[in-house]
Amino acid sequence: MKLKPLGDRVLVKRAESETKTKSGIFIPDTAQEKTTQGFVVAVGDDEAIKVKPKDKILFDKYAGTEIKVDGEDHVIMRNDDIQAVIEE
Amino acid sequence: MKLKPLGDRVLVKRAESETKTKSGIFIPDTAQEKTTQGFVVAVGDDEAIKVKPKDKILFDKYAGTEIKVDGEDHVIMRNDDIQAVIEE
Amino acid sequence: MKLKPLGDRVLVKRAESETKTKSGIFIPDTAQEKTTQGFVVAVGDDEAIKVKPKDKILFDKYAGTEIKVDGEDHVIMRNDDIQAVIEE
Amino acid sequence: MKLKPLGDRVLVKRAESETKTKSGIFIPDTAQEKTTQGFVVAVGDDEAIKVKPKDKILFDKYAGTEIKVDGEDHVIMRNDDIQAVIEE
Amino acid sequence: MKLKPLGDRVLVKRAESETKTKSGIFIPDTAQEKTTQGFVVAVGDDEAIKVKPKDKILFDKYAGTEIKVDGEDHVIMRNDDIQAVIEE
Amino acid sequence: MKLKPLGDRVLVKRAESETKTKSGIFIPDTAQEKTTQGFVVAVGDDEAIKVKPKDKILFDKYAGTEIKVDGEDHVIMRNDDIQAVIEE
Amino acid sequence: MKLKPLGDRVLVKRAESETKTKSGIFIPDTAQEKTTQGFVVAVGDDEAIKVKPKDKILFDKYAGTEIKVDGEDHVIMRNDDIQAVIEE
Repeated sequence: MKLKPLGDRVLVKRAESETKTKSGIFIPDTAQEKTTQGFVVAVGDDEAIKVKPKDKILFDKYAGTEIKVDGEDHVIMRNDDIQAVIEE
Repeated sequence: MKLKPLGDRVLVKRAESETKTKSGIFIPDTAQEKTTQGFVVAVGDDEAIKVKPKDKILFDKYAGTEIKVDGEDHVIMRNDDIQAVIEE
Repeated sequence: MKLKPLGDRVLVKRAESETKTKSGIFIPDTAQEKTTQGFVVAVGDDEAIKVKPKDKILFDKYAGTEIKVDGEDHVIMRNDDIQAVIEE
Repeated sequence: MKLKPLGDRVLVKRAESETKTKSGIFIPDTAQEKTTQGFVVAVGDDEAIKVKPKDKILFDKYAGTEIKVDGEDHVIMRNDDIQAVIEE
Repeated sequence: MKLKPLGDRVLVKRAESETKTKSGIFIPDTAQEKTTQGFVVAVGDDEAIKVKPKDKILFDKYAGTEIKVDGEDHVIMRNDDIQAVIEE
Repeated sequence: MKLKPLGDRVLVKRAESETKTKSGIFIPDTAQEKTTQGFVVAVGDDEAIKVKPKDKILFDKYAGTEIKVDGEDHVIMRNDDIQAVIEE
Repeated sequence: MKLKPLGDRVLVKRAESETKTKSGIFIPDTAQEKTTQGFVVAVGDDEAIKVKPKDKILFDKYAGTEIKVDGEDHVIMRNDDIQAVIEE
């Protein structure tokens, strides 16, 4: 089963919590409710989208809609809610 | 009897509840009031519309207006309220 | 006496309540305050208007302004408040 | 003395209450606070204005600013607040 | 000393209260807090400005900022807050 | 040390209070919290900016952000918050 | 590990508190919650961005999202939240 995002929507698989600490990026307590990390799964066809599947990204926590795909946590968000690509 | 949506409006037939669990996509409790699934029945003539009749879609629950057509639950929503096409 | 809508305004004669049930379209209780049906009487000169006099339409209930013309209930609304044309 | 409206402003002389009932157009109680009728006195130079002096119009009651000119009730409103021309 | 308004700003000298009654234009009690009159002193260079110094105008009372120039009451407002030119 | 404003930002040095009374421009009590005067120190590269360093200006009091540069009160504001140039 | 901001996002490393006093720029108490200083680390590809890595900047305190990179305080903000470049 597959989800194909429309327009400026991006499907993101939430990164697991332990990954966050290992990566060296740590979101302090006060901001913990605002950002989080994940991996791009699929993107819409909007030209403004600069991320591609497998990119690790930082996005606004309140962005988008939570959805479970094959049992795992995903978020469908708008491209503008993605703040940065995480390169390691 | 037939409904022809105008402009960026899309007519969607709500998917039945049991379909949701079988499909492998499951919307967790906290988000259950925000998204849902259905099948496109008819679309307006706006060029931005990328879905077509019979597409299975994921859309924002609060989008659009509920309407019964020939006894079945439908929703008329704006194209921008459609988040993704569900391919199985 | 005649009303000529301006710009994107559309003059609509409200369909009678019994018509609603016969037509097969039925608006369930929870949504009953949001949509309703009527017949287009006259339209403004805005190019975005795709409906024409005599079209049966579905529109947002809270749209526009109520007005009695020759004793019958009419509504003057903006074109964007029209959701779909009803073909039977 | 004369008032020359600017831009998209339109100067309207409020129609008297008795005129309303004679004309066949009657605004029901629930909507009485939303619309009213009047005669165009002068218009600004905005190209979007399609009404001209002496046109009888239907406009949104809360539109514009009340002003007395030579002792009679007038309203200065924006062109977009005019809903329709009344032809009799 | 001179004030040169910028962009779409217009400097207006408030008309004295007695002028209002003599002019035949009288703003009724209910609207008295919404409009008032004055004379244009200087205008910005925005092309949308159609008034010129010495024009007597009607403007929205809450528009702009009060300022005393050489001891007299002035208001700096945006061009869009001017409703009409008063010709006598 | 120097501050170079970006885009439509303008750096303004607040005029001292005594300057205000001497200049003949006096902001009455009721408006005292809305406007004030100052001298332009530096401007961003936005073409809409029509003021230049050393211009004495009138600006909206609540505009921008207070900052001390070399011990003196400055304000960084957007160009649109400047109401007029004061010529003496 | 590296963060690559997207679009009009800019990654900024917060300047330490002692730097602020030495620099001669001092943000007074009343404004202390509105502005702050930092160094640009990386910028998105939006053409409107005029700052570059290593620029010392003044930005709106409430702008953006706090994030720790390699143990140090950073902020990801939109380009428009940057007020000025600090040159020393």
